[in-house]
Amino acid sequence: MGLHVAVAGATGAVGREFLALLEQRAFPVGRLRLMASARSVGQRLSFGGEAIAVEELARASFAGVDVAFFSAGSAQKEEARRAAREGALVIDNSSAFRMDPDVPLVIPEVNAHTLRPGQRLIANPNCTTILLLMVLAPLERRVRLRRVVVSTYQAVSGTGASALAELDAQIEAERAGRPLTAQVYPKVIHANAIPFVSGFGPDGLTQEEWKVVKESRRILERPDLALSATCVRVPVRRAHSESVNLEFDRPVTPGEVRAWLAEAPGVRVWDDPARMAFPTPRDADGGDDVLVGRIRPDPGRPGAIDLWLTGDQLRKGAALNAVQIAEHVLVGARRPA
Amino acid sequence: MGLHVAVAGATGAVGREFLALLEQRAFPVGRLRLMASARSVGQRLSFGGEAIAVEELARASFAGVDVAFFSAGSAQKEEARRAAREGALVIDNSSAFRMDPDVPLVIPEVNAHTLRPGQRLIANPNCTTILLLMVLAPLERRVRLRRVVVSTYQAVSGTGASALAELDAQIEAERAGRPLTAQVYPKVIHANAIPFVSGFGPDGLTQEEWKVVKESRRILERPDLALSATCVRVPVRRAHSESVNLEFDRPVTPGEVRAWLAEAPGVRVWDDPARMAFPTPRDADGGDDVLVGRIRPDPGRPGAIDLWLTGDQLRKGAALNAVQIAEHVLVGARRPA
Repeated sequence: MGLHVAVAGATGAVGREFLALLEQRAFPVGRLRLMASARSVGQRLSFGGEAIAVEELARASFAGVDVAFFSAGSAQKEEARRAAREGALVIDNSSAFRMDPDVPLVIPEVNAHTLRPGQRLIANPNCTTILLLMVLAPLERRVRLRRVVVSTYQAVSGTGASALAELDAQIEAERAGRPLTAQVYPKVIHANAIPFVSGFGPDGLTQEEWKVVKESRRILERPDLALSATCVRVPVRRAHSESVNLEFDRPVTPGEVRAWLAEAPGVRVWDDPARMAFPTPRDADGGDDVLVGRIRPDPGRPGAIDLWLTGDQLRKGAALNAVQIAEHVLVGARRPA
Repeated sequence: MGLHVAVAGATGAVGREFLALLEQRAFPVGRLRLMASARSVGQRLSFGGEAIAVEELARASFAGVDVAFFSAGSAQKEEARRAAREGALVIDNSSAFRMDPDVPLVIPEVNAHTLRPGQRLIANPNCTTILLLMVLAPLERRVRLRRVVVSTYQAVSGTGASALAELDAQIEAERAGRPLTAQVYPKVIHANAIPFVSGFGPDGLTQEEWKVVKESRRILERPDLALSATCVRVPVRRAHSESVNLEFDRPVTPGEVRAWLAEAPGVRVWDDPARMAFPTPRDADGGDDVLVGRIRPDPGRPGAIDLWLTGDQLRKGAALNAVQIAEHVLVGARRPA
């Protein structure tokens, strides 16, 4: 009596997070199918006490599939389209459809109103964008944002299992006194900070920086929003963090920001200097909420605000957001997180 | 025929950097004395092939000392004043005198003009401030800065040897499957990012954030400068990095910024997306220059600029800047770096 669910890209970091989430949230799975590229065929992954064999995505039929979670990368764009044509509700975690005006780009807490009945293909935003907008959208609803400047501290698991292995190998090489080598990243990531996330795009910005700018504008429906992002990889295993400077159309106080965020679903304010309360990525690792702290006045611009946020980019930044979209579409309302 | 030189706080991270620099730069040391707190007395440190015994700072006489480099912390404020009274040129690396209008606060490349003949006490700025202003000052000279937003990625050695030991112990504990504990920092620093550097000050900013704001305004002689800083500790051993957004009084292009910084002493531009050239803290570790890259237009604000800088905070951010001040005062001109 449950749903027929497919996870495409099941063997990747986000794919595995989908399996964990579907179990943890008691998603009504009747039948689960796992799909990946040909070289993963034959692997078995555990779900609900059962070992499920991985099918080859290119040969899999989506007939009868109720919902398909795609985290197979932009290269699998045609497979996602095919799955939708074959009748599945497809939620795609790649960047392939995010700027397609025919495909809604959705964070359920922010813009669930853009979901239309009968829509078969929905795009999941970039992880850094989701975490940022979970905090910006509740503020924008109160006072219009004038300008946003973001610098990120992005976790290695955002790149995938190969990057985590590279970090671990570098730690081990250092310990053994061997030279540190890098293949996944252009520089050694252990004990370093790399101001480069994915390839370079136009104007010397990276693709990641453009994603944050363009997706934020689209989701907030503010094509003019003044937003700058500097995306930096740091040797953190899991959870992205962001340092954010905000200007609004009128002066805003830290107390207002705390009060507005306290009411925002999926956001938790951890902010009390007197008690040394502020969130770090280790606090967000494995959790569902975006944690916010260091909310304070910008000393250089009266009425502007600085803050710090951190969230698990594999959960709310990826798989959790996609599952929430499915819940919203299939059961008609967002479940409590 | 050399100078009589004292290093107070000789056993700390910055103190040891002073010894290395005095050797590397062939500073004209005739006699070197090392001073520290009582519990370090009896230690011997090597300089120029000689083992020099550490004296107790509180009992040391500065009679006859030509130059004394203090990195003994703000608690040693009175000892620094005494050394100056006893005739030494004192260059103090603590925050004790930085906002004292009678004490110049100097980065030689930026504001050597504030050094006055006969001045016996000179303050060395905060490390994050020095690295930032090495880049901002050459730009401010061309076009007045309107607003600066900085987020930092600060190395563990900025806290000292105990913090480096804590990071190493956490890495080892993780490897051994033991729980990770923190004493030096309020949270585990390994595989984390801590948005808190030194204690909290007024308004929810940290002391480090206020230092960057106030010292930058003083050194640039721009008491009104709109500057926001978010200071974050990352698991990098050495070299602080900063993500910087800049607005100017007129629109500025990335090409102008590159050209102006190419002429700035002590600054090196590493910036070529086509060749994947951008600097990381590992590139700056142990070097004298501040490295700058990722110079690009702010996509949200025409004419504004984003950039990334990194520099060794124990060298240019501390000991090197102090030695350069001494060179400037004693030989009347800054040496080439």
